[in-house]
Amino acid sequence: MRKVYVIGIGMTKFGKFPEKNVLEFGIEACFKAIKDANIDPKFIQIAYAGHARTGQLQGRECGVGQSILWDLGITGIPISSVGNFCSSGSTAFREAWIAVASGMYDVALAVGVEQLSVRLGKGRPLASDGIELLTSLGFAPATFFANLAARHMYEYGTTKEQMAMVAVKNRRNACFNPYAQYQDGVTIEEVLGSPMVVNPLTLYSCCPTGDGGAAAVLCSSKIARRFSRAPIEVAACALSSGVYKKQKDYTTLFVTQEAARQAYEFSGIGPEDVEVAEVHDCFTISEIVHYEDLGFCKKGEGGKMIETGETNIGGKIPVNPSGGLLSKGHPLGATGIAQVAEIVWQLRGEAGDRQVKDPKVGLTHCAGGFQESLELAEVSACTVLLFKK
Amino acid sequence: MRKVYVIGIGMTKFGKFPEKNVLEFGIEACFKAIKDANIDPKFIQIAYAGHARTGQLQGRECGVGQSILWDLGITGIPISSVGNFCSSGSTAFREAWIAVASGMYDVALAVGVEQLSVRLGKGRPLASDGIELLTSLGFAPATFFANLAARHMYEYGTTKEQMAMVAVKNRRNACFNPYAQYQDGVTIEEVLGSPMVVNPLTLYSCCPTGDGGAAAVLCSSKIARRFSRAPIEVAACALSSGVYKKQKDYTTLFVTQEAARQAYEFSGIGPEDVEVAEVHDCFTISEIVHYEDLGFCKKGEGGKMIETGETNIGGKIPVNPSGGLLSKGHPLGATGIAQVAEIVWQLRGEAGDRQVKDPKVGLTHCAGGFQESLELAEVSACTVLLFKK
Repeated sequence: MRKVYVIGIGMTKFGKFPEKNVLEFGIEACFKAIKDANIDPKFIQIAYAGHARTGQLQGRECGVGQSILWDLGITGIPISSVGNFCSSGSTAFREAWIAVASGMYDVALAVGVEQLSVRLGKGRPLASDGIELLTSLGFAPATFFANLAARHMYEYGTTKEQMAMVAVKNRRNACFNPYAQYQDGVTIEEVLGSPMVVNPLTLYSCCPTGDGGAAAVLCSSKIARRFSRAPIEVAACALSSGVYKKQKDYTTLFVTQEAARQAYEFSGIGPEDVEVAEVHDCFTISEIVHYEDLGFCKKGEGGKMIETGETNIGGKIPVNPSGGLLSKGHPLGATGIAQVAEIVWQLRGEAGDRQVKDPKVGLTHCAGGFQESLELAEVSACTVLLFKK
Repeated sequence: MRKVYVIGIGMTKFGKFPEKNVLEFGIEACFKAIKDANIDPKFIQIAYAGHARTGQLQGRECGVGQSILWDLGITGIPISSVGNFCSSGSTAFREAWIAVASGMYDVALAVGVEQLSVRLGKGRPLASDGIELLTSLGFAPATFFANLAARHMYEYGTTKEQMAMVAVKNRRNACFNPYAQYQDGVTIEEVLGSPMVVNPLTLYSCCPTGDGGAAAVLCSSKIARRFSRAPIEVAACALSSGVYKKQKDYTTLFVTQEAARQAYEFSGIGPEDVEVAEVHDCFTISEIVHYEDLGFCKKGEGGKMIETGETNIGGKIPVNPSGGLLSKGHPLGATGIAQVAEIVWQLRGEAGDRQVKDPKVGLTHCAGGFQESLELAEVSACTVLLFKK
């Protein structure tokens, strides 16, 4: 195993673009990433495309990567589709990392896409029979996290206002991110006063659906030295997945804890070393719970962490300077690689008006899944990636 | 990079089982593979699930591997979905191979599943708009290969009888394979007299749709020595993919040629060394063309190769002793790993009444894709895997 570096990243503006073809997001992101890497597209030796719902929404369950790369003039190399719920993009990134770390390939491309604004055959069910039943009974993601929020409030005294502060912080950061789906601020009152989705989660407490693409070029040290003035090292690339049956502790996401444990152990980097992080804030409560499960604070202290401003840009560990899923947007397969793009920009010092002051270590965290049964077992996948300059 | 071995394989009987859940095929195959490997399920450190159409057909685009492994008591490890058309299973196998070859993991599981006999929301289109249009215009896989057959007949004098011999041979082999979807013989007359699908391809010239699962346990040499008396070495694991625009030569599948080239180069094994092969005979003409593109014979001599019996069990290079896709069946995601299972059984000498005499080197070949546009560009993926004992 050898060290792997990111030398190019690119992404599209996130938002709703129903007039576009889902491939276009990938093509734009790849062109940008390859240009950013300063390499000829012919250098790409292997590619992975991450997407979670293009089969059900656009009838493209396979071949997404092949079709995208054709537009870049790349053909013949190994290209595969990779899926892992909301972590599909970061799982594709991880496969690219393994391919380079193995010594088998020198340059790999990871691309993630999704288009949630349009779907083939409107109105048909999206999930399998069991899931469909659960969804019709109300067990959608918002319900899962609303339950978690209620329990967190009960056990640790977390408040609705603290949760709203997550949305306010991330929307504030997004104002400085030209790629973000929403670039205007909100207040605590507006978050709390927006329409109720599942109590206590209001509309502005939930990430939007949207479309977009993101891509990254990964390479060996030899290639990094040759083409990049500012290669970013991938210090760890952990994936935890499987089925977690809910135990006594309803306020912990074990899949996050396990991925974080693996990433910290692999790299020797601890949560105290992280200077900027992109965290999976699919709902406001998610970010608070992930602070805890990633080890940024003790269990139960996530609410206090957002309230004291420790995760603001300028705070102890700035979280989601990009705006996060809540404001930058969440086109599933693109999200994990867009997080990487933000951390790479931050570590390079290229994040413009949302730049964190001189960070040397960054983390991305992406978690997804669904509930398998009424027993509330959770089928999930979570990546925790660490980067250093 | 280090050597990788297969120490366990398992598969379900292929066929149409609409009463089953798609996960059941994977669970049965994994149980068998792990039992065959003689290891505790807890040894599995990473897993990949290959499936091509479970998103569109069963609403399971992600999480297939997680749900299967839950039944085996495995959770927390990295598990991903991998898709690549008909090569989805062999692409999952390849990812598992890279994971072990990299030195990062000692034991990996690859599982492939598909269930084509049932589909959620019957009647809805399966492909994206462009593909749907092409399909409605008649550009289905059978059309693609019928065009290829017509051209092959024109250029090289290949006959309908020679093509039918492929179906006859593979059905004969399948009579001795308890896992095969069809276990009764057919004659040349029956193949030629079966209903026409696309001229010159009749019903018995096309592989059936069906359901099934297959799994393999891959490991490092240390683990292989400890648990297996007959580990089979993975000598090469090549994947070629991308978009191939049809050039002047309509009788060549470039994606197969390229994967074969990579596999032979990587391993130092040549086509003349292959003693048993499982080849992607989705249609009778496919097997004939793949003989040529895999280098088993010269271009244009595939028809003669089947006619002279060189690919019979007992011939120079026995091809599809399992019965192939034409008779064993073709549940997309399962096929690539079921091919590996057959070759492992053959190399171990465990193939019963269809055993090839003492082979030391085996090959599997799996190719899939679809046509992107009316210009007949082919979005494809092809694996060529080499094994030796």
